[in-house]
Amino acid sequence: MDRSRSARLAKSSWNRGTCQCCLSNRIQPLVVIQLDKKILPETKKWLISKIQEAELLVHPGEDDEGDMILLSISHCTLLHSAETLGLSKIYHNGEVMPFSITDRENFSNAANDEEFVTLAEKQYIIKQRLDHLKTVEEESIPGWPMNKKILKGELIFRKLVKQGLVKKVYPLHDVVKLKAFATQWYTEISLSIPTDDIHSYFGTPIAFYFSFLVFYTWSMVPPAVMGGLLYLMPWDSLIGYITLAIFNVIWSTVVLELWKRRSAELAYNWGTLLLKSNFEEPRPSYWGPLGKNPVTRRQEPYYPSWKRKVRMWLVSGPLVCALLGLSVMGMVAFFWFERLMKYYYKQTPCLLTLPLIYLPSIVHTLYTDLMNRFYKGIAEILTEWENHRVESSFQNFYTLKIIVFTFFNSFAVLFHIAFFKQDLQLLQKRLASLLIVSQVINQCTETLIPYMKERLFPLPGKNQSKDDPDIDKMHYQGQMTTCAGLFGEYIELFLQFGYLSFFSCVYPLTGALLLLNNLTEIRTDALKFCRIFQKPFAVPEANIGIWQTAFEMLGLVSVISNCFLILMLPQMTTYCQNNEIDNKTVLFLAFVLEQALIFLKIIIAFGIPDEPEWVRIKVAQIEFQSFQALKLQKQGL
Amino acid sequence: MDRSRSARLAKSSWNRGTCQCCLSNRIQPLVVIQLDKKILPETKKWLISKIQEAELLVHPGEDDEGDMILLSISHCTLLHSAETLGLSKIYHNGEVMPFSITDRENFSNAANDEEFVTLAEKQYIIKQRLDHLKTVEEESIPGWPMNKKILKGELIFRKLVKQGLVKKVYPLHDVVKLKAFATQWYTEISLSIPTDDIHSYFGTPIAFYFSFLVFYTWSMVPPAVMGGLLYLMPWDSLIGYITLAIFNVIWSTVVLELWKRRSAELAYNWGTLLLKSNFEEPRPSYWGPLGKNPVTRRQEPYYPSWKRKVRMWLVSGPLVCALLGLSVMGMVAFFWFERLMKYYYKQTPCLLTLPLIYLPSIVHTLYTDLMNRFYKGIAEILTEWENHRVESSFQNFYTLKIIVFTFFNSFAVLFHIAFFKQDLQLLQKRLASLLIVSQVINQCTETLIPYMKERLFPLPGKNQSKDDPDIDKMHYQGQMTTCAGLFGEYIELFLQFGYLSFFSCVYPLTGALLLLNNLTEIRTDALKFCRIFQKPFAVPEANIGIWQTAFEMLGLVSVISNCFLILMLPQMTTYCQNNEIDNKTVLFLAFVLEQALIFLKIIIAFGIPDEPEWVRIKVAQIEFQSFQALKLQKQGL
Repeated sequence: MDRSRSARLAKSSWNRGTCQCCLSNRIQPLVVIQLDKKILPETKKWLISKIQEAELLVHPGEDDEGDMILLSISHCTLLHSAETLGLSKIYHNGEVMPFSITDRENFSNAANDEEFVTLAEKQYIIKQRLDHLKTVEEESIPGWPMNKKILKGELIFRKLVKQGLVKKVYPLHDVVKLKAFATQWYTEISLSIPTDDIHSYFGTPIAFYFSFLVFYTWSMVPPAVMGGLLYLMPWDSLIGYITLAIFNVIWSTVVLELWKRRSAELAYNWGTLLLKSNFEEPRPSYWGPLGKNPVTRRQEPYYPSWKRKVRMWLVSGPLVCALLGLSVMGMVAFFWFERLMKYYYKQTPCLLTLPLIYLPSIVHTLYTDLMNRFYKGIAEILTEWENHRVESSFQNFYTLKIIVFTFFNSFAVLFHIAFFKQDLQLLQKRLASLLIVSQVINQCTETLIPYMKERLFPLPGKNQSKDDPDIDKMHYQGQMTTCAGLFGEYIELFLQFGYLSFFSCVYPLTGALLLLNNLTEIRTDALKFCRIFQKPFAVPEANIGIWQTAFEMLGLVSVISNCFLILMLPQMTTYCQNNEIDNKTVLFLAFVLEQALIFLKIIIAFGIPDEPEWVRIKVAQIEFQSFQALKLQKQGL
Repeated sequence: MDRSRSARLAKSSWNRGTCQCCLSNRIQPLVVIQLDKKILPETKKWLISKIQEAELLVHPGEDDEGDMILLSISHCTLLHSAETLGLSKIYHNGEVMPFSITDRENFSNAANDEEFVTLAEKQYIIKQRLDHLKTVEEESIPGWPMNKKILKGELIFRKLVKQGLVKKVYPLHDVVKLKAFATQWYTEISLSIPTDDIHSYFGTPIAFYFSFLVFYTWSMVPPAVMGGLLYLMPWDSLIGYITLAIFNVIWSTVVLELWKRRSAELAYNWGTLLLKSNFEEPRPSYWGPLGKNPVTRRQEPYYPSWKRKVRMWLVSGPLVCALLGLSVMGMVAFFWFERLMKYYYKQTPCLLTLPLIYLPSIVHTLYTDLMNRFYKGIAEILTEWENHRVESSFQNFYTLKIIVFTFFNSFAVLFHIAFFKQDLQLLQKRLASLLIVSQVINQCTETLIPYMKERLFPLPGKNQSKDDPDIDKMHYQGQMTTCAGLFGEYIELFLQFGYLSFFSCVYPLTGALLLLNNLTEIRTDALKFCRIFQKPFAVPEANIGIWQTAFEMLGLVSVISNCFLILMLPQMTTYCQNNEIDNKTVLFLAFVLEQALIFLKIIIAFGIPDEPEWVRIKVAQIEFQSFQALKLQKQGL
């Protein structure tokens, strides 16, 4: 290896296709395509020509191994894509406006600033261009077995990945940029994070996640304080617990409403609030007879939405319910099996029958794990089959399916203990173990162990950066763990929110424990994204999508759970006996309390507007100006 | 009187101000201003000059009495106003587009068709122009007492009405147009009504009301059939009643969701779906320091919305609750008083103590009536004080206050009988009397009696139309009953919907009785608007506003009511005794049923989209085109 390899990354060696703009800039590689090691130069050449059709800049990377292609994008292609995507940028008057290429001089720094389109957006645009690359005619790949032709109109990259020619496509870290904000981010103990830097480096989904995490951690302070007080000095317990329950309901509603406002502010500043899924380009795998999009009049596949609805309601819905049923039946079988084994052991307690006690747990764990994998597969296949037009909608419906399942699996046992066994002590023990043991284990396996592993046994390429730092570092990044999306992170918060809003009135310490957990979670998650994971591609999004609804639903169900738990408190029983209140009256009162709380929730949700006044006005301004512009334009025609 | 008076209505005698367009058309008087009889010619002259400032056409009407001014509007002023209002009209390609004056050639028939702007819209525009007329300088009215000056920037017409100079302003009927569709409308027994004719003649609010009434009547068929079947052959009663309750919940949700879709379709066709309250001109009485509207950048009073919210939540809300409390206390006092009187009468039953039994009812009726009037006044003052920017918002919040009050007053007694007295027989009796007696009386007092009165003792002017039909007919119309808005009509449907969804599981005949009532209601209401009422001014609206929410809320509360009623059915008691189910379990099951039904409601409401696919696409198209146009326009600047 010699320094010349590194030099190849310089401008001159880039295949720029027909693009003649931005000749003066040094080109920075943004995305890597990792190819099969056995690839022939002619195949590679063909591939490069295809990529140039997508108006991307290609570096052939004809080094010793030759299994890598580097991609970049010219500034003007970037601006075109930013418009098609519907991104908003800062206008010369300081307002955020939908970007338009023809009007670029009026956008602050659009013409010359490299940072005008963020790194995350650039990489997403490259990915999208690759994904949408289609063949015009039936084609065979030169230097690759003949029988694997690409049909007319087929998506090239999807086919190449299937055929094993393309191993992976990943965006590159920009070490200098990352260092500028990351260290402060994951080492400081304060609750402020560099949100805007995260946004421009990692993209909206991750920026939203961390903003939500911080917001959520802050919001955990009141229940932590309330619960802590109640735990330390149980003042007239029954009233205390009822107060805590009511407090929980109000708290969860207010927090979620305030987050909506915060989210709208962030999305406005990041230029994604005005993104309309209607105007977006369809997902690569969206299929249907070619037609005109009725809204944008662009040529694209057209699949009527009623067909999608039929599939969702008549196939996906029932199937999901059936699988949920299987999972619940598994739980019932487990309880029955466990009781049976205990009974056997009691009859003949010896060393030989002892394992019998553990047998049900083992079988159930295996069953659950199997079900989990199976369900995830089915959910993905179903959602793909529902044929959603845009990525965000696909993600939402896929996530929804998984949320429902996870919700059942995680809370069914707790609900069983709470409402059927009515064993509050066991419930408290379970919660404590979930909140302390599980969380610690989680954080270790998620972050600490991978981090230690990476430090002790570094992957090849990380430190051998003497003769060709760039190429080796790229290889190194390709071998990093792939980020499996933010699902795992959100589900953790979702479960936490469930524990807190469902059960904190029987285990008041929940809030404090979660606060403690989240304070470290912010740092470990940051570390994970900066140091352990491959940089993920980021779809621009306007909010946290289905998660908002999921959290709100939890809030609604928590009203029922809280009212029931209060009914079952031992203090309640004592109180009723002392005051000679019969069961029926108490149940009736709980029922009234529940309705009142739901009503309260509705009032609060209605009373807090979803967007801050200033955001509402800005959006209305753009709408009004658009309407006026349409009128003027019509006149000109 | 001679024919010349009539001739004065011809074109030549109109004061057209500076407007020189549409010289060839005969001008039709659209709105009448009725003045004080003692008005001097100079005052009238001054008033006419003022009206001309509003770019309206004026006919001085200098006849014998001289107390009338006729107004009309030129076609081009009309088109300007249609644009400012944000009305949509049919574009040359058949789509409905926001109207633009500069682009008028591309709208079908905008240039020459008198019907392009509907009669109702014309009259509303004239009214709005009058209402917004302001003085530039402090002015005194010539020929009218000096001390009553009009201050700078004051609303002229508001002041003139206050001073008694202007008696009333009312739009004129167009007898020819009305005849063309009205007779068929109120005589045919079929369920179809000429919706579009009603829209163009009476305006959106009345057209929406009648469309809703017809839709609602149709939707009454299934519960009428279900209930009727259950009434005639009570098959295994308990199951039957539970089925009916579940059916009711599903039915009410589906009906309201389908109406939303129908309403969106109608509004799209009528060109009001895209009306944005943000872009509207403020109400005349909206006040605040003069500023720029942040959205439209037009000069207008600016009152921050947080101040309005503070007033609504901290003053209006608590005051309304306090008044509700007074009303409920009145009811409690009534029950207590009634029981006391009955007790007295039992002790000494004689002719002298007999009136005592009726005393509580009389006192309570008086109290309720007083409260009603007082409350209505307070509600109007409060809503005015909340300072809503646009008329629709004012109407919504005013209506909301009245709805809440009416709801309490109408249902409190029924709920009391159902849930405290638990006397289902009394409940059935009450419902029967409400549904049969009250409805018959209502329809008679509302329509039949005024109609008979009008036929037997016609107002002067109606039939003396020989020598000057026009002027006399206008006088006659001025003396007709003023339409007090659609509040009364909607509240009737609202209460009906309440009876049906709350109590039909104990009185299954409700649906059938209501169906019967509504079939006649459609006709009598039509008669009322065509023959008895003065033509009302109509604000263009995009939907039925707060009433949709009110009906949905009823639907939600009905779930609770249905579950409770089932609990109290005698069949339930028998069933429990036979199967040895204790009270607690039954209550628990009712609770579970309720949650399940609410969940079902949410799923249904979520599953049925609020707008039909085609409307959604049309609206998205316009939004998309607007966004594109904004970009292009920016480029041109």
